[in-house]
Amino acid sequence: MQQKLIFTNQVGAAVDDLVESLGTPQVILLTDTETAEYALPLLLADSKAAAGARRIVIPSGDLHKNLDTLSKVWTELADAGATRSTVVINFGGGMVSDLGGLAASTFKRGLKCINVPTTLLAAVDASVGGKTAINFNGVKNQIGTFSEPVAAVISTLYLNTLPEQQILSGYAEMLKHGLLDDKDTFTQLLKYSPVYPQFDSERLLPLLESSVEVKRRIVNEDYTETGLRKALNLGHTAGHAFEALAMKRNSPVPHGYAVAWGLVVELILSHLKIGFSSDVLHSFAAYVLENYGAFAITCDDYSALIAYMRQDKKNTSADDINFTLLKAVGEPLTDNTATADEIGAALDIYRDLIHLA
Amino acid sequence: MQQKLIFTNQVGAAVDDLVESLGTPQVILLTDTETAEYALPLLLADSKAAAGARRIVIPSGDLHKNLDTLSKVWTELADAGATRSTVVINFGGGMVSDLGGLAASTFKRGLKCINVPTTLLAAVDASVGGKTAINFNGVKNQIGTFSEPVAAVISTLYLNTLPEQQILSGYAEMLKHGLLDDKDTFTQLLKYSPVYPQFDSERLLPLLESSVEVKRRIVNEDYTETGLRKALNLGHTAGHAFEALAMKRNSPVPHGYAVAWGLVVELILSHLKIGFSSDVLHSFAAYVLENYGAFAITCDDYSALIAYMRQDKKNTSADDINFTLLKAVGEPLTDNTATADEIGAALDIYRDLIHLA
Repeated sequence: MQQKLIFTNQVGAAVDDLVESLGTPQVILLTDTETAEYALPLLLADSKAAAGARRIVIPSGDLHKNLDTLSKVWTELADAGATRSTVVINFGGGMVSDLGGLAASTFKRGLKCINVPTTLLAAVDASVGGKTAINFNGVKNQIGTFSEPVAAVISTLYLNTLPEQQILSGYAEMLKHGLLDDKDTFTQLLKYSPVYPQFDSERLLPLLESSVEVKRRIVNEDYTETGLRKALNLGHTAGHAFEALAMKRNSPVPHGYAVAWGLVVELILSHLKIGFSSDVLHSFAAYVLENYGAFAITCDDYSALIAYMRQDKKNTSADDINFTLLKAVGEPLTDNTATADEIGAALDIYRDLIHLA
Repeated sequence: MQQKLIFTNQVGAAVDDLVESLGTPQVILLTDTETAEYALPLLLADSKAAAGARRIVIPSGDLHKNLDTLSKVWTELADAGATRSTVVINFGGGMVSDLGGLAASTFKRGLKCINVPTTLLAAVDASVGGKTAINFNGVKNQIGTFSEPVAAVISTLYLNTLPEQQILSGYAEMLKHGLLDDKDTFTQLLKYSPVYPQFDSERLLPLLESSVEVKRRIVNEDYTETGLRKALNLGHTAGHAFEALAMKRNSPVPHGYAVAWGLVVELILSHLKIGFSSDVLHSFAAYVLENYGAFAITCDDYSALIAYMRQDKKNTSADDINFTLLKAVGEPLTDNTATADEIGAALDIYRDLIHLA
């Protein structure tokens, strides 16, 4: 792990210091249309380097995270006369850092990057691990490189330029990291809500910092994704099933919301199978209900949900379904299996806890 | 330097051993139309892994080393269901290993590669250094990665499937490495001619091996291309000028031929300016004349040639021209400069040595 992680809400000063430490080279600012409209004015007012930078603006949204956009970014880098001493600032959500990181890591075999995530999900997730990517031929993230930015400047400064739903979606990943970390971190997260009236960028920043540190620790301990890194899948087996069911109902839900509900189901399984505390489960479910509402299911949905869970990449047998579960907060156990009956029992309790009985 | 370099004319056995050592995963063979016609039958007869591999055939030639071909290779890798345990065998010249290496290093963030160069230039040059690339927007090698194959299997087995001109072109880079290495290596190279009737794949192989080792040593000592690696530019300042002049005359010459003539000019400058041996210069010029013929110039071409040399990337001032020169065989001195008058004097001697007086 070579990259610097800088946690600060003085983003402009941090970016200017970084650019100066790199010998004040040519600076190119890559962003997307939405970020350019809402968050960019804040950065331009704060940072001389960003204000003086040549700008490349790509269309927003995962649909545009493709070869066509990548090729246009390469062309603009060429038009700008970018060289290996050029620094690209990727300013936006995960789509911008994924595509911008790939463009920079392949142009002339590698320009330098500084990532400035503007969404909570990008801050907590995309800024660690060095993965860059575009979608290709209908497959998400099929083309990419492992390439870390020189630094990521992580703040909570731009979050209130975004819909609250998007903040909550990122916060679900922080809740997951809290569950993987320790009881103190987790309790602090439950005491806070990242949206109005409680939203407070200064108070959120240290919570975000400890959350990124959890991911960094796990990724460093298991860079090749063989063991411990599977712990980061907590909540995602059931979460992906909720996401798929919502899609099939033609009313998609944000990824993080599905993860929040998936975490409830998997903590129930953790309680039933390996003794996770009932008290902690109840306070977590109450938090999720209050902040994320309820994802309504009946027993008629169980077989569809279980079929979706069976498609998870972690499964190695056709029968049981593989889960990462928790013995307690901070004690993940990977490679647990559950039968369809056990999952049905967990979904019964989920409906009870989330008041859908 | 992680990659294995295997020097052998038992290419099939070496490839099969490598594939087996990787756990006999899915094997994909990437080659171009010309190599598929002339050299591939030899490999298929020799290697079970290659014979059983799914094949991707791209159009030959530098014109096709572009994003369109890269995108087609990605699509074929996706159609083949390639995963990170897949091995791609790049079978061909530098164009195949450059483009195939880039495709493999970016598909799912990195498939494994084995390079099997079929040209002398690819064997001596492209197989060390880990550079992958495509041309983009009219600029050679503008998009690429640093990514080494698991191994390169280097042979002289396929050379006689190629035009003699192409072998001689690669041999010029070997002569350059010999000049940078030591007198013994260099003398051996001058005693041999890589074309009929002397061509002998077994005799050429150890010469090729020591030549690749010279490059490997220089690249390892100076991976970032700041100092010593400039020594690899020997012959190329004058060589590129000959190449450009030939292009302007609408009768292009192979790159290696231009390098051979360029080496003569730069050894003359080495003699004039830092005392390179006159005897060695004369035997080298005689070898070049016999094998590469003469590139005809008159004094009317001097100003055009000098103008081309001025465009060289090494130049930092507008006046003098930067050269890598030799004090003796094996003793390069980078960052020498020569004036237009000195270069004119060297070109006079070149015309004399190459019998154009």
